[in-house]
Amino acid sequence: MSNTFGTIFRITTFGESHGVGIGVTIDGCPAGLAVDVADIQAALDRRRPGQSDLTTPRKEADQVEVLSGLFGGMTTGTPIGLLIRNQDQASHDYSHIEHAYRPSHADYTYDQKYGRRDYRGGGRSSARETAARVAAGVVAQKLLAHYGIEVASYVSQVGAVAVPVGYEELDLSLIDSNPVRCPHPETAERMAALIRQTRDRHDTVGGIVTGVVRHVPAGLGEPVFDKLHAELGKAMLSINAVKGFEYGSGFAGTLLFGSEHNDQFYTDEAGEVRTRTNHSGGIQGGISNGQDIYFRVAFKPVATILQPQQTINDQGEEISLAGKGRHDPCVLPRAVPIVDAMTNLVLADMILRARANKV
Amino acid sequence: MSNTFGTIFRITTFGESHGVGIGVTIDGCPAGLAVDVADIQAALDRRRPGQSDLTTPRKEADQVEVLSGLFGGMTTGTPIGLLIRNQDQASHDYSHIEHAYRPSHADYTYDQKYGRRDYRGGGRSSARETAARVAAGVVAQKLLAHYGIEVASYVSQVGAVAVPVGYEELDLSLIDSNPVRCPHPETAERMAALIRQTRDRHDTVGGIVTGVVRHVPAGLGEPVFDKLHAELGKAMLSINAVKGFEYGSGFAGTLLFGSEHNDQFYTDEAGEVRTRTNHSGGIQGGISNGQDIYFRVAFKPVATILQPQQTINDQGEEISLAGKGRHDPCVLPRAVPIVDAMTNLVLADMILRARANKV
Amino acid sequence: MSNTFGTIFRITTFGESHGVGIGVTIDGCPAGLAVDVADIQAALDRRRPGQSDLTTPRKEADQVEVLSGLFGGMTTGTPIGLLIRNQDQASHDYSHIEHAYRPSHADYTYDQKYGRRDYRGGGRSSARETAARVAAGVVAQKLLAHYGIEVASYVSQVGAVAVPVGYEELDLSLIDSNPVRCPHPETAERMAALIRQTRDRHDTVGGIVTGVVRHVPAGLGEPVFDKLHAELGKAMLSINAVKGFEYGSGFAGTLLFGSEHNDQFYTDEAGEVRTRTNHSGGIQGGISNGQDIYFRVAFKPVATILQPQQTINDQGEEISLAGKGRHDPCVLPRAVPIVDAMTNLVLADMILRARANKV
Amino acid sequence: MSNTFGTIFRITTFGESHGVGIGVTIDGCPAGLAVDVADIQAALDRRRPGQSDLTTPRKEADQVEVLSGLFGGMTTGTPIGLLIRNQDQASHDYSHIEHAYRPSHADYTYDQKYGRRDYRGGGRSSARETAARVAAGVVAQKLLAHYGIEVASYVSQVGAVAVPVGYEELDLSLIDSNPVRCPHPETAERMAALIRQTRDRHDTVGGIVTGVVRHVPAGLGEPVFDKLHAELGKAMLSINAVKGFEYGSGFAGTLLFGSEHNDQFYTDEAGEVRTRTNHSGGIQGGISNGQDIYFRVAFKPVATILQPQQTINDQGEEISLAGKGRHDPCVLPRAVPIVDAMTNLVLADMILRARANKV
Repeated sequence: MSNTFGTIFRITTFGESHGVGIGVTIDGCPAGLAVDVADIQAALDRRRPGQSDLTTPRKEADQVEVLSGLFGGMTTGTPIGLLIRNQDQASHDYSHIEHAYRPSHADYTYDQKYGRRDYRGGGRSSARETAARVAAGVVAQKLLAHYGIEVASYVSQVGAVAVPVGYEELDLSLIDSNPVRCPHPETAERMAALIRQTRDRHDTVGGIVTGVVRHVPAGLGEPVFDKLHAELGKAMLSINAVKGFEYGSGFAGTLLFGSEHNDQFYTDEAGEVRTRTNHSGGIQGGISNGQDIYFRVAFKPVATILQPQQTINDQGEEISLAGKGRHDPCVLPRAVPIVDAMTNLVLADMILRARANKV
Repeated sequence: MSNTFGTIFRITTFGESHGVGIGVTIDGCPAGLAVDVADIQAALDRRRPGQSDLTTPRKEADQVEVLSGLFGGMTTGTPIGLLIRNQDQASHDYSHIEHAYRPSHADYTYDQKYGRRDYRGGGRSSARETAARVAAGVVAQKLLAHYGIEVASYVSQVGAVAVPVGYEELDLSLIDSNPVRCPHPETAERMAALIRQTRDRHDTVGGIVTGVVRHVPAGLGEPVFDKLHAELGKAMLSINAVKGFEYGSGFAGTLLFGSEHNDQFYTDEAGEVRTRTNHSGGIQGGISNGQDIYFRVAFKPVATILQPQQTINDQGEEISLAGKGRHDPCVLPRAVPIVDAMTNLVLADMILRARANKV
Repeated sequence: MSNTFGTIFRITTFGESHGVGIGVTIDGCPAGLAVDVADIQAALDRRRPGQSDLTTPRKEADQVEVLSGLFGGMTTGTPIGLLIRNQDQASHDYSHIEHAYRPSHADYTYDQKYGRRDYRGGGRSSARETAARVAAGVVAQKLLAHYGIEVASYVSQVGAVAVPVGYEELDLSLIDSNPVRCPHPETAERMAALIRQTRDRHDTVGGIVTGVVRHVPAGLGEPVFDKLHAELGKAMLSINAVKGFEYGSGFAGTLLFGSEHNDQFYTDEAGEVRTRTNHSGGIQGGISNGQDIYFRVAFKPVATILQPQQTINDQGEEISLAGKGRHDPCVLPRAVPIVDAMTNLVLADMILRARANKV
Repeated sequence: MSNTFGTIFRITTFGESHGVGIGVTIDGCPAGLAVDVADIQAALDRRRPGQSDLTTPRKEADQVEVLSGLFGGMTTGTPIGLLIRNQDQASHDYSHIEHAYRPSHADYTYDQKYGRRDYRGGGRSSARETAARVAAGVVAQKLLAHYGIEVASYVSQVGAVAVPVGYEELDLSLIDSNPVRCPHPETAERMAALIRQTRDRHDTVGGIVTGVVRHVPAGLGEPVFDKLHAELGKAMLSINAVKGFEYGSGFAGTLLFGSEHNDQFYTDEAGEVRTRTNHSGGIQGGISNGQDIYFRVAFKPVATILQPQQTINDQGEEISLAGKGRHDPCVLPRAVPIVDAMTNLVLADMILRARANKV
């Protein structure tokens, strides 16, 4: 029950990191959207390992195969099946982790929940599962584009190195101008330096991704439980390594008084309703108000480190364990397309839900 | 579609702040749980306005009526219907807000979404809806109690006044020893003073509620989308005025390196698997690991302030508007039972989901 | 999980036959539909006991109370709560059935499933639950009316007495012209005579309700699992005492060859696509084709008979048991508004689902 | 939203008849079930075209590939992905049907719903989709086997040729002893003769499949909307070409009086609760009572016939059209494994739902 996301625009992902492959079915996508497979591939390439010296040098082609749902380059309204085969999945040796419970990984909890697990490289708990989300997010994005909605995410903090200004002062077209995916070039360089230092110390570092959605029509989102920001929050918290979510004024808003925090409405020259400030983050009562939506997502440092750590095995015996192979010292740059994808998926679903509630 | 929460233990709430009443149906609750209506009433009394001089002096009895699902004091497995009638709902004058879009309220977005709204006191967007959640949460709590799980929440910050220590250094039995619901007595007094000053200035103030869940068995939570912390996050973000959620190390965890952040496993003298630190907040890969779960929920200052503010009406014309009547200067004390309720609901659902996935 | 019906236009019912009352919440209904409470009451009056000498003389007022979701006589998009209180529920003596397992009732199976039950008059398994569906069906009907869709059901068979012609040869405005709800007056009289004879023998009799939906736009229904007729079938089979469902040619269609059964398309003078025959029952591949939808629903004879029957008690001991009180000798006349309601609910949901799947 | 079936044990199918392939993801299957891929293949071989001279001579290997969810021959609790690639999908010429609306097919309704369709051989509306259900049904069957539940279906009628006795007088081990899948050998021969005659006349013929479930524990099924027989009915009605469903006494039960129809309980020598008759078909109040479940499913004659028929094209112009290629004169023999699969899927879901509703 846990492998499906969305109410009307629904995706179901499947696959393990070192099995045959990772895949997704998209159900509920309207017919008549043009989807170019090259766009899906481009998004996967943004998430793929081995893009720069800041990410794992592990090479995975992550080639997408369309199994169903597209005909003549268009969605048909039937489920879209996408498959990304794993490469070389049989060739590695996992004996060092078969019985080990890696610190801050899901080995122990999967064993407790299921009584067994595919221990090869994390199996289903691996962040490789997010490749399927990224692929599906591209289809969702086509629906958003139809409505003019634009989604952009970027790395706003790595460790203690943070972008000093808000999103509205940045040129978001610069996000992919550097391998960190930070549109503030000087900060991007400092972030890159921190990531390299961390990698050389065989350590890992966390950070924050900021998401921005512009040109959102007012009226998206459901009241009560499925508030737009509640669905965004769940979407982000479902990404591997995420520890927190805030939108609009977020945790900092708790320090303001109501008279400071309230966003006053006005009508601009074009006759559009706007707010003078945007502490609400574009969402009021769980429903978009037409202003920019923005939010921040906290990622912990990657759990796999190339240093020995104390832990236990599945017999409860203490062991020492060090990560092997090629891992990311910092997931933030590769997390950006995943945040984009989840944002696209939430909004696509909300667009269709809004459609469903009109006479 | 948005008024239901939960997958197996499911609640559906209904009702407006100034209509006939607020209610809830609980579907999927197992048969055979003893539920004392007095316990439901006690929880509602914790949420009720007018409890102390820190909350709105508005008096509402919030008397619960059981409509179905209990027989002989026990759940029967059939849906439990609960109704809390509103009082005096017809007697007030709402003409000053009928056409106004109150700043940082949901008036404008409801109109945009639905083309109409019940404008009396916020209608469905009012936090009064959470009374239904609190009532349902008591039934969920009975299921948790069956498994020995304990939920407790408290006010850990009001404005800039914060409890200086972590939850593990507090005596959580003191939560209800003061009207702020902060188990750190000195801080509680400072919080109370801040709330009174704010009230006297006709302003409002936000803050943070910390939630703690103890004695959770390992194995609760679903991988991928419905991770335990993702469901908790959505639950909290669905509460009125919430702007952020973090669990375990949260946003602060982004400042740590992996070698600092990882929680090392060990086996204690009793043979139980434990971790030396708990940055994971009791959840790894979305599944409980048996350690304490803890999280923080950010609440913005209440939007209704008893000062004039600039805004517009539904014709787009600028108007000045001041809150009338009796409102909370700070929702935090009354938010505690709501956070408890949503935590109970998430965990009850996860217990049943875990049961459903065993042969 | 079993008390909710529908995907977008969703109802959740609650309540037992002899508890406080029966109720329903309707979630997902669009805003802006005019709903007159008198229309809900009129539908309940059609289902109510004591309408004629053909039904139980038991008197129940079945007065509906609107708890939420309507404002100024219009739906607001928020959940509509409806409550029908039971009368005199405390005054009866149920000691003769408290420990008995009535033949062909749900006493035994509820005990096996839940380990307990509300034994007063069937509790949740009573057909009284359908009052809530009838109330909700009126709201659904308002949505159908917006699209011009017309639903009508009638009693087409009682025991072996059957209407000798198809629905297309009947004047469906005559359905309520007699207490049997059969629009073929001569047959209605024969049915009424059979019901009276059966009642006088302290026995019960079953029959068939035929449902018809006219002016359905092409394109409603989902392919694969949620075919329009599959949802109609589930809806009908969920009504108490229903044993079978067929649509279009139904079971009789198995006797035809493909060359006889296929419905040939043509374009009529108005340029509308039509079929020369309608063995398809207005649905092809699970999706409406614009022709009339028609189906038949089989009801078994009522299980409660005023004669002694052999059965067992909850200790497995053989006992003799006879029905007491006032029961229906034939449910068919009162089943008509229930079939109407479920048809309305299925189509309302399909209308909204169709809306959700357009760009 | 329409491509998923089940509440806890959930399948989502994807794929078109002449695209890349047909597939399914199974979510919610418990960990620890042994699944032999050869068993999945064997079930697919029962459904496959070209098994005998009674079915289409079209040859399709229908080879299943496991994409995820099995590890070491066991289910892991993660989603099971299965893919069956189509063969030669590109090689055919569909120009004769690209713009035609075949009588009693879904061409017209898909165009009306989606504005486009994959016209190659029916696309998503093709019964080829059921291959995915058959594959998934084998996994469900493993769960049933764990509880000792046995499912068997057989052809009980072809055209007017019917098995003259009830299922309880048949030796169900003979189902696969003849290509018709009818366990009454003399009737099977008459059915085979009718199918051959029909085929030689370039026509098609319908019939009935009877399903039987034995050794069902009491207590499966949900009250109210998701009654066990309502879910079975929906499952069967979702199969291509199905026009009706009845269980237990079914439509014939409408001819009995209550005193004849009621199933009297007794306790057998082993102390088991049983009923003297089984008009209830093993289900009372929507919940299994431990007796055999049996039901009948009506299939219309196949719509594709190798004779010219009048119809229209997508411009509304009248055309004459004759089926080409190799088609089944009667789907009944190949429908048996599909009915088995859907029965397995419904019961697997109900087993897990029953588990979820216990404290």
